[in-house]
Amino acid sequence: MSIEVVSIGNEVLRGIIVNTNAAFLGRRLAEEGWDIACQTTLPDEPDVLKQGLKEALMRNPVVIATGGLGPTLDDNTLECAKELFSNPPNNLPNGVGTAPGYFFSESNRALFLLPGVPSEMEQMFEESVFPYLKKHLPATLLHREELFFYLTRENDVDPLLRELQGKYKLDIGIYPSYSGVSIVLRGPNNEHLITAKKIIAEAFKASLLPSSKMEEAIQSWMIKHQKTLALAESCTGGFMASQLTAVPGASSYFLGSLVTYSNQLKEDLLGVSPETLKNHGAVSPEVVHEMWTGLLKKTGADYGIAVSGIAGPTGGSSEKPVGTVFYALGKRGEKPQINTLHFKGNRQTVILRTTKWLFGLLLKQIL
Amino acid sequence: MSIEVVSIGNEVLRGIIVNTNAAFLGRRLAEEGWDIACQTTLPDEPDVLKQGLKEALMRNPVVIATGGLGPTLDDNTLECAKELFSNPPNNLPNGVGTAPGYFFSESNRALFLLPGVPSEMEQMFEESVFPYLKKHLPATLLHREELFFYLTRENDVDPLLRELQGKYKLDIGIYPSYSGVSIVLRGPNNEHLITAKKIIAEAFKASLLPSSKMEEAIQSWMIKHQKTLALAESCTGGFMASQLTAVPGASSYFLGSLVTYSNQLKEDLLGVSPETLKNHGAVSPEVVHEMWTGLLKKTGADYGIAVSGIAGPTGGSSEKPVGTVFYALGKRGEKPQINTLHFKGNRQTVILRTTKWLFGLLLKQIL
Repeated sequence: MSIEVVSIGNEVLRGIIVNTNAAFLGRRLAEEGWDIACQTTLPDEPDVLKQGLKEALMRNPVVIATGGLGPTLDDNTLECAKELFSNPPNNLPNGVGTAPGYFFSESNRALFLLPGVPSEMEQMFEESVFPYLKKHLPATLLHREELFFYLTRENDVDPLLRELQGKYKLDIGIYPSYSGVSIVLRGPNNEHLITAKKIIAEAFKASLLPSSKMEEAIQSWMIKHQKTLALAESCTGGFMASQLTAVPGASSYFLGSLVTYSNQLKEDLLGVSPETLKNHGAVSPEVVHEMWTGLLKKTGADYGIAVSGIAGPTGGSSEKPVGTVFYALGKRGEKPQINTLHFKGNRQTVILRTTKWLFGLLLKQIL
Repeated sequence: MSIEVVSIGNEVLRGIIVNTNAAFLGRRLAEEGWDIACQTTLPDEPDVLKQGLKEALMRNPVVIATGGLGPTLDDNTLECAKELFSNPPNNLPNGVGTAPGYFFSESNRALFLLPGVPSEMEQMFEESVFPYLKKHLPATLLHREELFFYLTRENDVDPLLRELQGKYKLDIGIYPSYSGVSIVLRGPNNEHLITAKKIIAEAFKASLLPSSKMEEAIQSWMIKHQKTLALAESCTGGFMASQLTAVPGASSYFLGSLVTYSNQLKEDLLGVSPETLKNHGAVSPEVVHEMWTGLLKKTGADYGIAVSGIAGPTGGSSEKPVGTVFYALGKRGEKPQINTLHFKGNRQTVILRTTKWLFGLLLKQIL
């Protein structure tokens, strides 16, 4: 008894938009204990779309489809679905917007058609699809535990996980990210799950975080200890601040970020001396040190991070190649850590890795 | 003769990571003129995975699969693929990292196995998969044109597109985003395509941009006219700056952003008066005006945008609900536009919509 998620639209198939709807549905279904059989993305072409929906309904008793319900010329989902059922659909209520949603049901097959706009799709899932599934399709996998370790690699945790998988017959997933690794344990026996979780948590307790969001862990600690944080960003260009402020309530501890992209702003706002910039260059330990000192002085923050590097693709040299990043990080009244990092990858990757790495170092210092 | 993209891994199926690899492959294949038949995401379980790969190879002559090639306990892709072919695979070179890649070929069926890490997958696609496809699977759709209109909605363009679709027998896609709409025209007759493109461009020329990236359009204009830009961000928390600095070369015109999340920083860095903050609140036309004035004074920028709003989920009131955003935008020496915007959606959506809307307004002013 499994569920299939179907994403509809040439814009998804052709990569014009990234399929965040499938990720949302997959995550919510897994969280609630359902197994997703597979996920399929189909084009807008009526013949192919109709055939694809038909096959999905043959493979699985419940199909949740998103997209192609709009009023424009490339939206064909409803017409195709109508040809697969003899009963007309029920309308699903939309508490957020104006897009329609539909529910077809016949001979133990159910098809939900949800809008492609994420906010409307998500609300319709919670209000209409989830209650239906809970009532008609009891979840098979009831237990699930998740752990997150920051600044940790797949290979660090793999041997222990293999041992536990064999011993307790668990379904174990290791999911690496730029922040660290998430480990998800699933299985029918809750006691086994809890025991395995404890063993893993104990083995890597120095890197264990309460959630996979380092930004949330920073916020919790700062608020609990009534401390404030400010940033001085150059190469990360505001990305670090945007990650911290994405968490609701960030204003309780986060004062702000001085995104000093130009050298002139580094001088005017942070008090970096023109001589230091001239002698060592903007990407140097000396400049991040002065940025950090100026940052704490200007903002009055308890903790500060200053960062300057070469995100690329241009601006690198043999001495300081693209991916070279200097940072100063620390607490008011103490000497900051000043160091250099080297990251591989394109501009976006260098910015992302720098951000997550520095948040990890901050957590290491405060936890 | 079509291509199927297969994504492998429970982390994708269960939404722990968003499937950007499928978007990359879809985009690149479409750009080069291939039709993607469909995209499928399969779990790590060997039996289901093997069956899924087998079905994909029956449906389509070329299958490009990503993920599940790592060394850890949940990686089973290679073993499953080996059971479907009698010949062993060839190794694909990896110019970026250490992850392996494989190519199976037999009886007019081809299966590429690429790593799940985006940077390694992308490079391997360009260096190994793309040359193979070009040689063995001539693209059927040779012509493709794309237009982007900012601050434009689907319904604005739909009637004209329907007319052109009927007249010129084109495959037309309308892809709305927070920035505007992208329109993609595809078809076998290049003359028809060019004619239709001209008609559409002419009809909405006031909103036409050279690319779907407003940030690139801003950068081109600023560099061409030797102007500089700076931001004063409150509710967007550095996100606006991060979008501008994501474009390589942004340092040529973008001076920086003063992310003044706390009121104290609004006073200290931007010179907003404590009385204005007290009398009108941080989210008010008066405060964004003072932020804007202070921003241009502090940074010396030619153009500035100041923004303060309520991103939510808390902090709203009946007078200023969540999604209320004030901005001041304009050119040094002239009176700035000061106005209020209202956006629906969660915190992330409010920040994203604010950012794209303000970039659109800046473009409207300068273009």
